[in-house]
Amino acid sequence: MIKLHCFGESGNAYKAALALELSGLDWEPVFVDFFAGAARTPEWKTVNTMAEAPVLVDGDMTLSQSGAIQQYITDKTGKFGGAPDDKYEVLRWVLWDNHKLSSQAGMTRFLMNFLSADKRPEQVIGFMQGRLKAAYTVLNDHLEGRDWIVGDSMTNADISCCSYLFYPEPYGFDRTEWPNMDAWLTRISETPGWKHPYDLMPGNPGDRA
Amino acid sequence: MIKLHCFGESGNAYKAALALELSGLDWEPVFVDFFAGAARTPEWKTVNTMAEAPVLVDGDMTLSQSGAIQQYITDKTGKFGGAPDDKYEVLRWVLWDNHKLSSQAGMTRFLMNFLSADKRPEQVIGFMQGRLKAAYTVLNDHLEGRDWIVGDSMTNADISCCSYLFYPEPYGFDRTEWPNMDAWLTRISETPGWKHPYDLMPGNPGDRA
Repeated sequence: MIKLHCFGESGNAYKAALALELSGLDWEPVFVDFFAGAARTPEWKTVNTMAEAPVLVDGDMTLSQSGAIQQYITDKTGKFGGAPDDKYEVLRWVLWDNHKLSSQAGMTRFLMNFLSADKRPEQVIGFMQGRLKAAYTVLNDHLEGRDWIVGDSMTNADISCCSYLFYPEPYGFDRTEWPNMDAWLTRISETPGWKHPYDLMPGNPGDRA
Repeated sequence: MIKLHCFGESGNAYKAALALELSGLDWEPVFVDFFAGAARTPEWKTVNTMAEAPVLVDGDMTLSQSGAIQQYITDKTGKFGGAPDDKYEVLRWVLWDNHKLSSQAGMTRFLMNFLSADKRPEQVIGFMQGRLKAAYTVLNDHLEGRDWIVGDSMTNADISCCSYLFYPEPYGFDRTEWPNMDAWLTRISETPGWKHPYDLMPGNPGDRA
């Protein structure tokens, strides 16, 4: 059975977990207690030199970086890759998400919710929120008149871009301000088999409280 | 002939330009005056909704995001993809670079060199430099005992990760502090056909001075 080393708070892990869940593959999550430093131990570094989660283990294959795991799931199942002609379009949105959306949303959410208030770098948070607003604008504009980011069904582009947007902790994103994204997120969450990150992976702020 | 809309200061454009140049494909750069706002005009948005450079145009194909352009060049030429078994390893380093290295190096270099001094957000710069140090550590450790990031030849992983590291403007990266990266950058720049970003693409701080 495929194992995904992950934790609930990680939107990057959620990309892999959601792709696994919706693909119909048989998989199980393995909790990485990232906030307690589990991903920075010497043992973990032998699994993943990048000191990150998620990591997928499928037989002899060990793979990190959510976008690479998503591609692996697509190659294995034929799902979420889009039409053959859309291959580069899916890839470019996955890269855009890693570069401009998830990376900055994840960081901002971390700084605003998982650091003690006296350690919050307010200038960094404000700067990131400005960059994120530009990213939301790009995505919301792109979704005008479209159901999905690429083509006419859910692809890795949607799974990548939606990941941090479902979390409840405040970081400056209010989906009601971005109507095309709001409708698209509803479309994703109404897909049969969809689960919220905290229902799909172990570890959430409530567990730790 | 393939056209690459680009400008010299962009490390992301350099990834595409260097891959084109070393692949042996026939290509030419088209200057995008990004700092003068050329990538944010309505005309440009019809080419690229993400309002970014680089953009590759090859006949009917128009493509943005350097990592997607690199994959397109690999598919077209068979170069820089690594061995078949290394496909996911190359992809994960390209994603890691977009997520953790180039995105933050490019931003920090911009803030420190292309903004007027009174507008520099010092807390953001310090924060980014801390994150970048963690990224340099990951890459430098990975290169211990290795000539290339993946396998035994140059791949898209190397072309992606090296991009911002060749620029002369200071942003906190000193290659002599990272000996494995230093040797690897020399290996790249000694590859036949290699060119510095300011020799490969139009537009550099000297032109604008």
